[in-house]
Amino acid sequence: MSKTFEVVELVGISTESLSDAVKQALESSGKEKPVSWFEITEQRGRVTQDDKIEFQVTIKIGRKL
Amino acid sequence: MSKTFEVVELVGISTESLSDAVKQALESSGKEKPVSWFEITEQRGRVTQDDKIEFQVTIKIGRKL
Amino acid sequence: MSKTFEVVELVGISTESLSDAVKQALESSGKEKPVSWFEITEQRGRVTQDDKIEFQVTIKIGRKL
Amino acid sequence: MSKTFEVVELVGISTESLSDAVKQALESSGKEKPVSWFEITEQRGRVTQDDKIEFQVTIKIGRKL
Amino acid sequence: MSKTFEVVELVGISTESLSDAVKQALESSGKEKPVSWFEITEQRGRVTQDDKIEFQVTIKIGRKL
Amino acid sequence: MSKTFEVVELVGISTESLSDAVKQALESSGKEKPVSWFEITEQRGRVTQDDKIEFQVTIKIGRKL
Amino acid sequence: MSKTFEVVELVGISTESLSDAVKQALESSGKEKPVSWFEITEQRGRVTQDDKIEFQVTIKIGRKL
Amino acid sequence: MSKTFEVVELVGISTESLSDAVKQALESSGKEKPVSWFEITEQRGRVTQDDKIEFQVTIKIGRKL
Amino acid sequence: MSKTFEVVELVGISTESLSDAVKQALESSGKEKPVSWFEITEQRGRVTQDDKIEFQVTIKIGRKL
Amino acid sequence: MSKTFEVVELVGISTESLSDAVKQALESSGKEKPVSWFEITEQRGRVTQDDKIEFQVTIKIGRKL
Amino acid sequence: MSKTFEVVELVGISTESLSDAVKQALESSGKEKPVSWFEITEQRGRVTQDDKIEFQVTIKIGRKL
Amino acid sequence: MSKTFEVVELVGISTESLSDAVKQALESSGKEKPVSWFEITEQRGRVTQDDKIEFQVTIKIGRKL
Repeated sequence: MSKTFEVVELVGISTESLSDAVKQALESSGKEKPVSWFEITEQRGRVTQDDKIEFQVTIKIGRKL
Repeated sequence: MSKTFEVVELVGISTESLSDAVKQALESSGKEKPVSWFEITEQRGRVTQDDKIEFQVTIKIGRKL
Repeated sequence: MSKTFEVVELVGISTESLSDAVKQALESSGKEKPVSWFEITEQRGRVTQDDKIEFQVTIKIGRKL
Repeated sequence: MSKTFEVVELVGISTESLSDAVKQALESSGKEKPVSWFEITEQRGRVTQDDKIEFQVTIKIGRKL
Repeated sequence: MSKTFEVVELVGISTESLSDAVKQALESSGKEKPVSWFEITEQRGRVTQDDKIEFQVTIKIGRKL
Repeated sequence: MSKTFEVVELVGISTESLSDAVKQALESSGKEKPVSWFEITEQRGRVTQDDKIEFQVTIKIGRKL
Repeated sequence: MSKTFEVVELVGISTESLSDAVKQALESSGKEKPVSWFEITEQRGRVTQDDKIEFQVTIKIGRKL
Repeated sequence: MSKTFEVVELVGISTESLSDAVKQALESSGKEKPVSWFEITEQRGRVTQDDKIEFQVTIKIGRKL
Repeated sequence: MSKTFEVVELVGISTESLSDAVKQALESSGKEKPVSWFEITEQRGRVTQDDKIEFQVTIKIGRKL
Repeated sequence: MSKTFEVVELVGISTESLSDAVKQALESSGKEKPVSWFEITEQRGRVTQDDKIEFQVTIKIGRKL
Repeated sequence: MSKTFEVVELVGISTESLSDAVKQALESSGKEKPVSWFEITEQRGRVTQDDKIEFQVTIKIGRKL
Repeated sequence: MSKTFEVVELVGISTESLSDAVKQALESSGKEKPVSWFEITEQRGRVTQDDKIEFQVTIKIGRKL
């Protein structure tokens, strides 16, 4: 028995926390192809003009093809 | 002369061998865009409930855009 | 406020220079989804039959989803 | 004067946050060998069947031998 | 047009969360040189004597020179 | 709900194939703690005195604590 | 005989080429501390609003302390 | 007592399996300098025109100088 | 013929030298399971209160299971 | 059908550009063994005494054995 | 309670040993900001004209800001 | 002006120290091609039958072609 998954890379953004940025990315992945797993590959960010921290978290998402 | 390729990431799964898991991933890539090259980037797996080894091999595939 | 980006991987090819290979990849990314940023992840190449150097530069492109 | 530490690797799991997954792993390390330091080495996860994010954080723990 | 940025490396510490440790590091960067971007490069920590988790997050900060 | 896994590292050895070396390592892991997942982290080897290839494959194994 | 060097990290920016971005970074390093060597550690960029490619090249510079 | 080894890098190619590609590389290393150890450093490949998978495995070989 | 090794990670500490820190770690590994090989994976340290350098060297040790 | 390639590592040097340094390295590889592919693995440099930038680009070259 | 550290990168040089090169770098760090920890990140060198080995060891130093 | 260097990889072995293993490798490099620079890329070892530590240090050597 053999099956294949695809891996896509998304960047979620949040001014709340690193964990919330992951959630934002996962919610953009769409419902018709459920997420089997994800892996955080990069954690960056910037300071916004009203002095908030914007977390930018890159995740790789594994989805059934 | 200039041309571009896209790189997509797939995970092939097989209870046979690492090489067979690569083949499963390549077969899922589709015929209309032929595979120019591939690169193995991760080799993971699990033990199934009937005690077989399931190899999960991630490959990056280069295809003409 | 939260928004998400996708990351895609392209390989640009040029016999001019590494920088030109980046430009070739960016031009293939399409206009309807503008490029927010890119990152060079691999720089390879080959020597062509008429003895020119072909640069093959892989970039990851971040685009608004 | 010379002393030695051992390094063990644990994966903590939490549906709360990345930081809480670290805490779960540390609490499993046991009291008789106190944790001298830890290092996060991998951050993965999955979406549970009731649509929650499960964070899986791998840490290396240094403990006095 | 050309301009240059410097990259400095700071370690923020917090007993709250990984995200709060990032905030601590960013607040130490000073106001006269605003932060253009940051990148998390290491996430470590220790357990304090009163049994709290101390998160130590290393970030690289990009600032206009 | 929270649970923790331990990660141990084993090197399996086989003169058959890379896949068989993985199997050898998994069989040494013991039955009382079932293997949840594994990851190949290193693939080395040597040539034996009777001229066979000995594959030495290092895997990390995740097991419920 | 012993002497020490410091390593600083700069990001040069150019719309010309990767090599020119390196030059921009080196020119910002100042004359009173001459550059002993440099190493390219990251090559990123973006597309500007008038559709030019902006190369952002990070270099580490070694300078006599 | 001191002795030195050299490390050379070879790419073996096989349409059979990853393990067979390793064997091809080892056989090209020559008999007069026996192989002390090897390490797989890259696993790539392509699909041939008659639709077979060609495995290209790079190994580093340690040999007594 | 197949046999398996385990890999454990230890941190040796010495105020003498990096090489002596390796020796300290190896001596803590115990006699009943002889060390087949080791690999240095991290070299850190601190300055002690009486102004000595404390080398902290992490090694992975391979031992017959 | 099986064939083997060797990989050699060269450092090309140029005061022109990164791309020209690659060309210098390739020209030193010799004609009797044609270059099948190359990969850039390191990009360093220094500032010369007459204030020019000397680019030092390391490439790995694959050649039919 | 929160506090921040800065990380600076120095290269120590010695014709004695790797450990002595670390010491040279630490001594250049200055007394008014004591070193909290260090990490070796690169070990290079050259052969001097009078045929001695010059070790060049790069360390990252963590210091209270 | 352009010139090229070759990079070769050697493993020096010593029961004295890591630094001495580097020296052993450099002495095997030969006099007719002087060593321009070297870089330590791997530090491994084993325990000998008479209970000594054998350090095995891999270095890359840059030599004028």
